[in-house]
Amino acid sequence: MTETDERRRPTIRDVAAAAGVSRGTVSRVINGGHWVSPDAREAVEEAIRRTGYTANHAARSLATGRADSVAFLLTESQHLLFSDPTFALLLRGATEALAQRSMTLVLLIADTAAERANVEHYVRAGHVDGVLLISSHESDPLLASLIAAGVPTVCSGVPLGDRAHVPTVSVDEEESARVMTRYLIDRGYRKIAIITGPNDTPGGRHRLEGFQEVMGDRFDPDLVEQDSYDAEAGAAAMTKLLERAPDIDAVFAASDVMAVGAIAAARRMGRRVPDDLAVAGFDDSGLAATHDPPLTTMRQPWAQISSSMVEMILDVIAGRPREAVVLPTTLVARESA
Amino acid sequence: MTETDERRRPTIRDVAAAAGVSRGTVSRVINGGHWVSPDAREAVEEAIRRTGYTANHAARSLATGRADSVAFLLTESQHLLFSDPTFALLLRGATEALAQRSMTLVLLIADTAAERANVEHYVRAGHVDGVLLISSHESDPLLASLIAAGVPTVCSGVPLGDRAHVPTVSVDEEESARVMTRYLIDRGYRKIAIITGPNDTPGGRHRLEGFQEVMGDRFDPDLVEQDSYDAEAGAAAMTKLLERAPDIDAVFAASDVMAVGAIAAARRMGRRVPDDLAVAGFDDSGLAATHDPPLTTMRQPWAQISSSMVEMILDVIAGRPREAVVLPTTLVARESA
Repeated sequence: MTETDERRRPTIRDVAAAAGVSRGTVSRVINGGHWVSPDAREAVEEAIRRTGYTANHAARSLATGRADSVAFLLTESQHLLFSDPTFALLLRGATEALAQRSMTLVLLIADTAAERANVEHYVRAGHVDGVLLISSHESDPLLASLIAAGVPTVCSGVPLGDRAHVPTVSVDEEESARVMTRYLIDRGYRKIAIITGPNDTPGGRHRLEGFQEVMGDRFDPDLVEQDSYDAEAGAAAMTKLLERAPDIDAVFAASDVMAVGAIAAARRMGRRVPDDLAVAGFDDSGLAATHDPPLTTMRQPWAQISSSMVEMILDVIAGRPREAVVLPTTLVARESA
Repeated sequence: MTETDERRRPTIRDVAAAAGVSRGTVSRVINGGHWVSPDAREAVEEAIRRTGYTANHAARSLATGRADSVAFLLTESQHLLFSDPTFALLLRGATEALAQRSMTLVLLIADTAAERANVEHYVRAGHVDGVLLISSHESDPLLASLIAAGVPTVCSGVPLGDRAHVPTVSVDEEESARVMTRYLIDRGYRKIAIITGPNDTPGGRHRLEGFQEVMGDRFDPDLVEQDSYDAEAGAAAMTKLLERAPDIDAVFAASDVMAVGAIAAARRMGRRVPDDLAVAGFDDSGLAATHDPPLTTMRQPWAQISSSMVEMILDVIAGRPREAVVLPTTLVARESA
């Protein structure tokens, strides 16, 4: 069936014949309608509908450089997409913001080097107009490749390393960590540990820096665990912390998902949260409010992050330079800390 | 920086100048090379390489009809993608099968009519070579549009209605339901209800038919609930069933996620599962094994479904006709029924 349909696929010539105009006129209509009379334009549009001319979108994309789509590119394992609700929040917001502009969100997941190479090929081929790069690791060569190829790209979070020219939407990671750390100190906790993300991610590194700054002399490198942003890692980190320092009274986890894992591990080791041990999170991703106990956390403004990223990528695609946007976080005090 | 890159992006005019040929010649090369001398063709190809003409991938895609990508198109709400682990299983399997062939999986979610229109536009523009259509509702016009447009498409599940020509990968829904219903009867349950999916989905309709057939004279329309495949719907359905018929002793839910919701609702109404009420699921999506109590369910062969769909779409893209594939399910008896 496909073969037949391929053979039958109407061309620009068929459209011209059906509309009773030249191929040049059809081409001008497809490419934006300049120098075409309203009557001719209408005839061509009608002929396009009638012939079912499908390749013209690709042709228009070729001419305008527009695919009417933006990639939501996640350079993490698919597992994380489904285990951390923050990605679903960002994805939902970006999909809606793009749909309002009749654009399609294309979700691409590139975890392995091979997947990154395929995705890079796909993106550079012009199948998307721009890329929302979600959660980039410093060692990830994809961002540099996209920039080198001139692919409009916006990052969530300020990527580490020398990438001053990529427009970003982020929160102030360091200040957010300072606010939470001060809150824990003000609540009377004295032996405070941190479970943070990988050191090659902005969240992992800067949240630790903010924590360390506020802790000052009380900062103890033995009370630091760094691992990936998932519940298993949070649980493993909590287990190690409690084995090394059974008398810690609070833990600041760098994501709600890690906090949930950490609380489960603390319970398995006989600690009640928050009575024996306070655990704070980061993100307020939906998980925090429904968890038992509800998590004290730093709220990231997810809807604003995704809509800002979409506005920014549309500007970048249109060639309008954009500055970095830093959005505010809010401490949400619930029961866990 | 992007602006500069945008300005610098070479056009078909630059390629023509570099090759010393007309733009028409460049265009003919890009569009398949008809009516172009071998020398001119070589000069254009060399000029495309030299100028770094990036839109040429889109042009080549237009000419060859290949984007080296396949869409995983979900015509459900994004919510379902994240709440039902079966989608993650299918997505993982399809991503891996495509990556082995250096192809990219493009995830598209089309829930609203506007999103469906945008996605259809994107797919018909040739940004993907084919579509894996996941979970299609009978009323969904997207499948018919894709087929009419000659887009290579493979469906998961046999879509309802007159669509004999779409290649499909499915399980035998009716027989699977018969097996589970017989199992419940053999276990001694006598008043068995069913919570099934929407009647415009093959799973929703055919699982009910299989159940009804085995129940025979004992089939009671009052013991049937149909709703969407999520935990909230499962809970609401169970609540209604127990209000109408407090003495039911078993419930067959048409997905594990619905079963989980149904069990939660049964507990809220004072029923212990399986002691007071048996609840069986469908899917064995990972959720079933870790649930408390572990779910008795019909296992769908997820890895085989996704790899078969990928093999099938590649055949369809290549113009090789394919027959429908029906894969076996297995009853997995655990504790819930």
